[in-house]
Amino acid sequence: MRRDPNDPRLRSWVETPAGGDFPIQNLPFGVFQPAGGVPRAGVAIGEEVIDLAALAALGYLAVADTPDQSVFSRPSLNALLALGRPYWRSLRGRISELLDSDNAELRDRPEHRERVLHRQSRVRMRLPVEIGDYVDFYSSLEHATNVGKMFRDPANPLLPNWKHLPVGYHGRCSTIFLSGQDVRRPCGQRKTADSIEYGPSGRMDFELETGFLIGRASEPGRAVTTAEAADYIFGMVLLNDWSARDIQQFEYVPLGPFLGKSFATSITPWVVTMEALEPFRVAGPLQDPPPLAYLRAEGAGNLDLNLEVWLGPAGEDARRICRTSFRHMYWSMAQQLAHLTSNGASVRVGDLCGSGTVSGPAADSWGSLLELSWNGARPLEFPGARRAFLEDGDSVIFRGWGERDGVRVGFGELRARLLPALA
Amino acid sequence: MRRDPNDPRLRSWVETPAGGDFPIQNLPFGVFQPAGGVPRAGVAIGEEVIDLAALAALGYLAVADTPDQSVFSRPSLNALLALGRPYWRSLRGRISELLDSDNAELRDRPEHRERVLHRQSRVRMRLPVEIGDYVDFYSSLEHATNVGKMFRDPANPLLPNWKHLPVGYHGRCSTIFLSGQDVRRPCGQRKTADSIEYGPSGRMDFELETGFLIGRASEPGRAVTTAEAADYIFGMVLLNDWSARDIQQFEYVPLGPFLGKSFATSITPWVVTMEALEPFRVAGPLQDPPPLAYLRAEGAGNLDLNLEVWLGPAGEDARRICRTSFRHMYWSMAQQLAHLTSNGASVRVGDLCGSGTVSGPAADSWGSLLELSWNGARPLEFPGARRAFLEDGDSVIFRGWGERDGVRVGFGELRARLLPALA
Repeated sequence: MRRDPNDPRLRSWVETPAGGDFPIQNLPFGVFQPAGGVPRAGVAIGEEVIDLAALAALGYLAVADTPDQSVFSRPSLNALLALGRPYWRSLRGRISELLDSDNAELRDRPEHRERVLHRQSRVRMRLPVEIGDYVDFYSSLEHATNVGKMFRDPANPLLPNWKHLPVGYHGRCSTIFLSGQDVRRPCGQRKTADSIEYGPSGRMDFELETGFLIGRASEPGRAVTTAEAADYIFGMVLLNDWSARDIQQFEYVPLGPFLGKSFATSITPWVVTMEALEPFRVAGPLQDPPPLAYLRAEGAGNLDLNLEVWLGPAGEDARRICRTSFRHMYWSMAQQLAHLTSNGASVRVGDLCGSGTVSGPAADSWGSLLELSWNGARPLEFPGARRAFLEDGDSVIFRGWGERDGVRVGFGELRARLLPALA
Repeated sequence: MRRDPNDPRLRSWVETPAGGDFPIQNLPFGVFQPAGGVPRAGVAIGEEVIDLAALAALGYLAVADTPDQSVFSRPSLNALLALGRPYWRSLRGRISELLDSDNAELRDRPEHRERVLHRQSRVRMRLPVEIGDYVDFYSSLEHATNVGKMFRDPANPLLPNWKHLPVGYHGRCSTIFLSGQDVRRPCGQRKTADSIEYGPSGRMDFELETGFLIGRASEPGRAVTTAEAADYIFGMVLLNDWSARDIQQFEYVPLGPFLGKSFATSITPWVVTMEALEPFRVAGPLQDPPPLAYLRAEGAGNLDLNLEVWLGPAGEDARRICRTSFRHMYWSMAQQLAHLTSNGASVRVGDLCGSGTVSGPAADSWGSLLELSWNGARPLEFPGARRAFLEDGDSVIFRGWGERDGVRVGFGELRARLLPALA
C-alpha cells in the first residue's frame, strides 16, 4: 500500500542530510545531464539525483501510468508536465514509494541503484522547461509601498490599480539562466544631472522572488478561474529578477521595464511541486477592497515559505541581508493566473510567472537592495564593506524552504556572481 | 548566369496578376499545409505557393548549398533561417531562377510543376516561425506625439526618454495569431466615473504596425551593432497590435501594458525578405538630438512602404480609414535591434519585433482609432455607421507594399474580424 508522500515519518534509503532541502518529502523535478550523457528528467533526493529515464528503462515507472516513457528522456520537462496533474501526483507517489526505506524493490538491487543514482555535484543541471512566455508580477504590498514611498508620494505610495489587480508585465525568455551561471553587469542609458550617457549600470540590484511553472495549457479565449488554478500550476522555483535601477529609471515610462530587466533572470534548477508544498499552505492577508469576482479565491491561497538573501563580496563569506516569508504576499498565485488569463490570453506548458519582489513588514525583510539601502541613502554595512548597490564580484544567494513537523522542503540554492561590464 | 532577383524586368512563367503583392521580385517565405499534408516551407508567387520541400525532394534546390534538406519539411522556418544570410540570398536567387520565364528547368516539366505548385486559396497557412520572444516598440514620432497630446501635456507631449532611445516592451508570444483568425473582444478591469468593473472592453482598437523577424541568434552578453543588424533581420510582416484602451489605461502604470495587449497580436503569414525590400530603402528623418554612439547608423535605414488600414463593419464593404508610409518612422529597425541587445540580451532565431504604431504627419495617416477618432472625440463617419472604437463584427484589414519601376512588392492582406466578448 502506497503511503502519503508528504508523511513526515517517511525516510529514504538514500541518505538525506539533516537540514537539507531535499528529503523524501520533497522530490523536486529537474533536467540534468550526467558526464558523457544527454539531458534527461531527474528528481533530487538528498545529495543525489534519481534518473527518471533510467528508472523507466528498468521498468520501475511502468506502474505510474506513463503513456509514453520517452517523456523522461527529453531535454525539457514540458512533455512530462503536459501529462497533467493526476499523472504528476501518481509519478511523485511512485518515486516516493521506490525511495522509501521500507521498500526493497530498488534499495536491494545495487546494480540498478548504480544506474539510476547520480551525485548532484557530478551532473550538469539544465533549464527545467522550455519557457514560452515569462510574466513577472508585483504582488508584495510592502514592496510596492516601499517603491511608492521612494519614487512617488510617501503619504500615498500605492497606485490606484494596485489593490484591484495583480500588476504584471511580460519579461524576456531568452535570458532566463540557471543558478550558478554568472551574470554580467549590463550597459545602458542612464540620466545624470546634466547628461544622458551609455555605460555600465551603476545601480545593480537583485529582486528576491519565487516563480511558478505552468504544467497545463489553457484553452485560448477562456479564463482560468482561481479554483482551477491548481490544475495548471506544476511547481515553484526561486527567482532572481536582476535589475539595473538606473537603466530602468530612465526607460520605464510609459511602457514599463525593458533593458533594466531583460539582461538576466536567474532560477533554481529544481522545481518543487505544489504537492510537496501543500503542508505549508496558509491564508493570505485580508484583501481590502475585496477583489472583483474573477479574482476571489477560497481557502488557504498563500504559502509559508522562509526566504533569505545572502550577499558575498568577492573573497569574503556571504552574510544574510534579508529574511522574509512568502506568506506576506498580497496576491496569490491562483489570483495571478486568473488575472493573466482573464482577457482570454492562453498559457502554455512551461510558462514561468514571477511573484514580484517578496518584502515583509520588517526593514530586514525587504527583498531588494533598493529597499534595504533605501535607494542608496542607507548603505548596508559589512565587515570591511558597505553596499548601496551591488559591486562587481558580489555573489547573491537566495535560499527558500518550508519547515513543518521536522521536515524541511527547500528549493536548493539560487546563486550567481556579478561580473564586470564588458564595455 | 543568374539574374538579379530584384530586376524589375524579370517575369515568371507562373501567372502573377498585375497589382498583386507577389511578383517574382518578392518571393516571401512562409509555412503552409496542403490538404492532407503536413506543414512545410513555401514561397508565394502570384496566387500560388511553391513547395520548398517538394522542390528539394525533386533535386531542384541542391544547387543552393543547403546543408540539410530537411529544413524545408519542418513546421516552422526557424531551422531554415538559422542557416544564415548568405544562404537566404542564395536560396532566394535559386527560386527566382527556377521561376524565371526564360528558364525551362521547371517550366517545361508539367509533372514537376504539378507537384510543387499549390493554389494559395487551397492551403492552410501556419505561423511562419516559433517565436521565442516578442518585443513591441513605440518608434513613430507622430504616434507618440499624438498619444502624449491626448493623455499628458499637449504642449510637451514627448516623454524625456523618447528621442534618446527606442522605447519598447515585451509582449506575449502565446497569442500571436495569423491573418484570418478572428479576434475576440477581451474582458478586463476598467475604471468608470464611480467604480471599477470587470467586463468586455468598450474601447477596442487596432495598431497598424510592421514586424521584423530575427534570422540569426546573437551571442549572449554581446550587443548587435547597427551595422551588423542586416545579418540578423530576415524579413518583415504586417502586424496588428490589438489594444483594449480602457483595460490598458487602468493597468499600465508603472509596469506597462499587459492585459490590454496580451489577448491578441495578428501577423501576415508571408515573410517578405529584407532583400526583396532593398529597392525601397530611404533615409530616415533627421534625429535631433543625435543618438548616442551605439544607436548611430549609416546609410538609408528606413523603408518607403505604403501602409493602409481598411475597416469593414459587418455586412458592409470595407473602407480605407488610414493611409501612411513606413518611411516616417523615427527609429529604424537596425536601431531597435541595437538597443534591444545593448544590455547584452540575446536574440534567437524566430524572435519578433513590432515597429510600434505607424502614424504619419497627416490626420488620415494615423495608425490607430485612438488617434483617428482623437480618443473618441471625433468619431469616423461611414455611410450608415460611425466609429470611435471598434464594434463587434468589424473587420480590420491592413495592406502594405513597396512600389518602384512598376514592380509592387507586398505583404498580402492582414485581416481579422472582431468577435463579441464571451462574458
